Order: sequence, then C-alpha cells, then structure tokens
Amino acid sequence: MINSAVFQGETTYKMEQNLMESGKPDVAEDGRKYRIGIVGGGQLAKMTALAAFELGCEVVILEKTEHTPASRLAADIIYGDWDDPAALLRLAARVDVVSLENEFVDAASLRALEEAGHKLYPGARTIGLVQDKLVQKRTLEGAGISVAPFASITFRPDITMQARKLGWPLVVKARRYSYDGKGNATVNGPRDIDAAWKKLGGDKRGLYIEGFCDFARELAVIIIRAQDGAMVSYPVVETVQRDHICHIVRAPAEIEPELAARAVALAREAVVAIDGVGALGVEMFLSKAGDILLNEVAPRVHNSGHYTIEACECSQFENHVRALLGLPLGSPRLVTKAAVMVNLLGERSGHGEPAGIDAALQEQGAHVHVYGKAKTTPGRKMGHVTALGPTLLAAEQTAFAAAGQIHFGAPQ
Amino acid sequence: MINSAVFQGETTYKMEQNLMESGKPDVAEDGRKYRIGIVGGGQLAKMTALAAFELGCEVVILEKTEHTPASRLAADIIYGDWDDPAALLRLAARVDVVSLENEFVDAASLRALEEAGHKLYPGARTIGLVQDKLVQKRTLEGAGISVAPFASITFRPDITMQARKLGWPLVVKARRYSYDGKGNATVNGPRDIDAAWKKLGGDKRGLYIEGFCDFARELAVIIIRAQDGAMVSYPVVETVQRDHICHIVRAPAEIEPELAARAVALAREAVVAIDGVGALGVEMFLSKAGDILLNEVAPRVHNSGHYTIEACECSQFENHVRALLGLPLGSPRLVTKAAVMVNLLGERSGHGEPAGIDAALQEQGAHVHVYGKAKTTPGRKMGHVTALGPTLLAAEQTAFAAAGQIHFGAPQ
Repeated sequence: MINSAVFQGETTYKMEQNLMESGKPDVAEDGRKYRIGIVGGGQLAKMTALAAFELGCEVVILEKTEHTPASRLAADIIYGDWDDPAALLRLAARVDVVSLENEFVDAASLRALEEAGHKLYPGARTIGLVQDKLVQKRTLEGAGISVAPFASITFRPDITMQARKLGWPLVVKARRYSYDGKGNATVNGPRDIDAAWKKLGGDKRGLYIEGFCDFARELAVIIIRAQDGAMVSYPVVETVQRDHICHIVRAPAEIEPELAARAVALAREAVVAIDGVGALGVEMFLSKAGDILLNEVAPRVHNSGHYTIEACECSQFENHVRALLGLPLGSPRLVTKAAVMVNLLGERSGHGEPAGIDAALQEQGAHVHVYGKAKTTPGRKMGHVTALGPTLLAAEQTAFAAAGQIHFGAPQ
Repeated sequence: MINSAVFQGETTYKMEQNLMESGKPDVAEDGRKYRIGIVGGGQLAKMTALAAFELGCEVVILEKTEHTPASRLAADIIYGDWDDPAALLRLAARVDVVSLENEFVDAASLRALEEAGHKLYPGARTIGLVQDKLVQKRTLEGAGISVAPFASITFRPDITMQARKLGWPLVVKARRYSYDGKGNATVNGPRDIDAAWKKLGGDKRGLYIEGFCDFARELAVIIIRAQDGAMVSYPVVETVQRDHICHIVRAPAEIEPELAARAVALAREAVVAIDGVGALGVEMFLSKAGDILLNEVAPRVHNSGHYTIEACECSQFENHVRALLGLPLGSPRLVTKAAVMVNLLGERSGHGEPAGIDAALQEQGAHVHVYGKAKTTPGRKMGHVTALGPTLLAAEQTAFAAAGQIHFGAPQ
C-alpha cells in the first residue's frame, strides 16, 4: 500500500475494485426507476440528487420545511421530523433505499426502519456509533485507531481531575449535535472552566473532554464503502478551518506519499470500525511529530469531498448513489493535477441569494455552486467554489479570486 | 486565427473574452433567484436545468405532458402547446428569460413574446431563419457561407428539372420539422422520385432538394454567443451518424489545425448570419476534396456538445445558462486529451427504464446519463455515455464497452 500511487488513490482503488464482486443491483430490478430517500434536504441532499438524476434515479426527501436546497429536485417531499419513526417509515415506504444527510437522526428511530425491513445506509448501528462523539471516540480507540486522548466527564470538577492526566489546554466538547465548531470550547486552565461549562450548557447536556491537539495540518479523506464491504478511497486532502468551519480544501494534500498511505489506511480502519456504507468523510490531525490522529468520521457525503464533482472521475455524490443502489463503485482518480475548494459562507443575516456572481464568473476556471438556501446567517454554508489547476497555488488563486466576489447577506 | 491553439478553442476563446464587456447581469438584480423558462422539457431542458441548479437558478418549463425528463427539475410547469402564444406568454410571465429546446416553435408565436417585452434567446428572428431549412440555406448562402447546392421545389416534376443542374443522386428534404433523419429521402434517379415524394408527404408539405454530399467526415462545433455578440467556440468534433441519428461524437476531431480553424470560422459566420444567442450546434460536411460545407445550424444546446459536461472546463449547458442571463461566458477548454460520446437509443418500444446499468458502471471512466423518459421507441434518444481518455481510441473503447451493456426497450 505504501507507494506514490496511493497518493492519488489509484493503487488502493484498483486493489479494491478487484475485491468487489460483480453483482446485480440489490434494491431495484432492471427496468424500473430507482428511488432514493434522503433524510434532510440541504446542500448535501441537493448534490446527491443532482448525481442521482444523471443516472436516471429519483430522490424523495424528508424535511421539516419547504424551500430547502434539495426540495426543487425531489420527486416527493415528506414533511416531518427526522427523529419521528412514523415520518421515517413514510419516507421509506416510497423508496428503494434510505440515506441520511446528517448523523444527528436518532439511532433508535432509525432502527425502527431497519426492523420494518427497509434498506438504510448508513445503518442505525453506524449512526449509533458516531452520533455521540464520546461513543465514537471509544469505538475508534477500541479498534486500535490513534485518537487524541479523551475522557468522559459528568460533573464540572471532573474537568480539573482529568486535566491532571491530559494536561492543559484541553477542549470541552458536547457529545451530541456539534458541528462546524458549534459545541466546542478550548480551556487553557482552571479559570476557563466555568465559562466553557456555561457556553456548552453542561448542566443539561452531555460533555466530554479531549486533549488539545497542536496539529501541523488537518487532513481528510473520502471513503466509499459498498454494501459488500469493498472500499474506494479518494485522495488525501488538506483542510483549513476558519472559526471551526471548513474554509479551504486542497486536493491532493502536499504530503509525502508514505504519509498519505498511512492516512488512507487509518481512514479505512475507522470506516470498518463503525461499519459505514456509502460515502464517509474522515477527518484527521497530522501532529507536529508526524503522527496521524483520527479526529472524527462523518458517515455521509462530506464538505471535504465537494471538490470531487469537478476534480475526480466519479464524484463522492455519484459514488454514494452507486453504493446505496448496490451498483459498481466508480473511480476516485483525480482528473487534474490539483483542485482547491473554498466555502462560501453567509456574512450576516438576510435572504439566501448571492451578490457578485457576475464578477465571480469572470474568473475563468472557477466552478461556482450556489446551494439555493432561502436565508443566510453569519457563517452558514451557502455555496462553494472549486477551481482546478496545474498546481495547488494556481487553483487556490483562481478559487479565491472568484469566491471573494460572492457575498451572501451583504447589505443591498 | 489559423494556429494550433484554435484546435482546442483556446486562442479564439481568449480573444473573444477580451472583447467581452464586464457588465452587470441584465435580467435579474443581484440578490434574487434567476428564473429561466424553457419551451420543451426533454433531455436538453433537463441538462440545462442541472447546470442552472448548480448556479442557484430555477427553471420553469412549458410542455404538453407530465413526466418529461426535465419535469422533476422544474420549479413550475406550464402545460400547453409550444406554438400557442397564450401558453408562451404564461411561461414568460414567470421567468426572467425564455429559451427553447427545439427550433420548431412557431416563429410568429415567439414574436408575440418579444413584442410583449419578454427576453427570448434565441430570438424569433433567429428561429424564423432556421426552422424552414430552405430559408436557412438561403440565409447561409446569402451570407457567403459554403453550403451544399440546393433548390426550391413546388411540384414533383421540379425534382427532375433541378436534377439537371444538381446531378444525381440528390436528397429530397422536408422544409420543416425534420430532425434525426426524419424528413429526408435520398433519390438516386428518376425512378426513386415517387417513393420519396410519398414518404415525405410532398402533396401536403413543403420540400426542397439538396445535392448529395459525398463527404469524408461530418464535423460539428458548439458556439456560445453572448447577448453583446461575443462568442466562445468549443473544439471541433467529428460526428458519426447511424441511420441519420447522431451516434458517436469524437472530441477533438482528428483533423489538421488549419482545417479546424476553418471549421470554427465558418461556424461563427453561420451563427452571426442567423443572429443566434446562447448555445448553437453547427453541423458541417468535410468533403473528400477538403472543402467544408455548412450543413445546418441548430440554435440550441446540441447533441454534439454533450461531451462538454465532463470534457470541458465549462459545459455547453452552463455556458448557455450564462449567455441567457448575461453572465460572463466560461472557458470551453478541454480538460482531457480526448473524449468520446455515444448515444443510447431505444431498441424497440417499451417503458423508458434501462437494463444493464449495473454492467455498464463496471466500466471505469464511463459517465452514464439516463434521461428518464417515460417510454422508448426504436431510435429514440434515451441517454448517452461519455468517456474521457488519453486518446480517442481509448475513450471510444470505454464508451462503447459501457454503452453496449445498456438497453432500452429490451424484452423484460
């Protein structure tokens, strides 16, 4: 596995393809339209639906409100709460297979779907292993995967006690419903504890702590795992966060092939540990000492893989659809030397339509994606720009030149 | 213009971009959703809608029936006849700009849209110049563009009379509503005339004749023309017809750069002659003597440009959307050495769902597009496969390996 081709995902990919069985699709007979149900109708559902359409499939979504990014694309919309087993069953009754746009759907509700005989990927067990981040850490550690040191806490004084082992600074985290930095607080010493406890609502909400990882870089990789366990791995990318929100993705990461191979191997172990099926985004820290620690696994299409729409032979979205339907997985190979994705975030509150698209499209080679959300708020993911190029630097310059023109929530 | 870069569309493109003004979009203010109306809801509308969605726009279609390829993607569907000015006005009232999926919409009805102040690209004048193929030929010839010799006929004996000038064989063609070889009949001598006249319904329908072009190859090029007249040109491709239906598209055509430059120049003259705006597909014959004759111009996204989805930096569909909205045009540059597209045609009558997708997706690098039509008939365009590769041969092998697995209307 340790050779330079792994850097681009190729060798790994070919090995995996050889392992895959050539089977018939297992959810719909040839000659009728495949229907995919997605819990959630945001940008991840939208981009999945766009890929599904090209293959002639239909998508049904379960959402709380109208006018979500995926609602225009849905053959049908089930209105209801994601955690309501009755709503989930209504969705499942209309489709061949159900998938999720986020990992916060209650695992027990999802189990009801499986018990009723519906196909669900990722399954309730996978969701149960990841949606509580403390359980996820324990699962990964239990599988022998390197993670940052962590500890369970129940009461406020537990933090000081655990700090004796983990050392300062440390990060207090919410066990559930945390994403894009929501639900995290860095604690530099005892005097920060009360503020962190209050910010995260420790009296009402389960928290845990992690040792602070003073990383050199953050890496991520998209893995697609088929129902039979075969996997394909996209190139390892570098992610840059700003205010805890994914800001830049650089593909491929400028790291040694040996390191990339280790990152892919670790990501695959994590996917197997949680028994994921479909697309999964695996986030890792590269420490200053050159160690790779697994940060977290999201069992779904992932922001760090949006670049694959233009930059890879088969996108994470099409491959997710293929995995859901039991179809052969496509090649994750880069079709370019380099690609950079930059997120477009809301700047203040307002309607969801962008200003500056005209100026952005002057930038040749920039692929602009606008999600079509009705409203924006500061930091909300409203779209993204991907640029391909001969080098990461060239791609990044193009992506930023275009992204810098686009504003969501700017004063009119 | 005559240099090798034109072969890939690049130099031409850059020159054109420099000519383009950096203006504000002229159909919708920044900060609200652009809406595009499309007359027709087939695969061309579908692929245009998919491109529009990525830019955050919405699409409204005018169609006669439900369950067309684009119907799932439409924010709204106006049910009605394409030629009915009232239906066209209902469509136009809901959108920023109207476009067409085919050139058969009655030009007089379209004029009513423009007279009511609605934006329409291509305009009624363009449609009026192309939808009657005899008028189109006269327009092109009048602009000094080389076309195959042709002549107007009114009565059956006119054919024999004109044959004295054009020589045998010749092709009798319907002036209107002919596509994919429907409305053409080759006449090798006087004894074929009655059969051709009867097949084409000459007593009830306007016909004309063309000299038979014993071509070496058929070429095509997609031109995008902005509202201000700026143009970008995609690479010249070779098209291979089977039973008069586009079967294979090879991009770029394996021809000398000088010849490609001549083809692009001719195509651009044709686009200007009919005052086209948006995407246009220009079909040409390359004679055995090395002359290029213009065959016909379709003022819309075109089957010979479907390869641009994967093979070019900005697809014909996205560029058509950009032209409609007055946004800067994107680069038509190939992102691969070679690309081949193969159409998927119905084999017999039946429902519109494919068999064999599973086997087709085993073929790595094949991009499978299924249009989602409710029903198939023999020869109906049901989807296409595009493959990229280091050479045309490699791409064609991949495309055929995948396409050969997919069947529409096969016995169940």
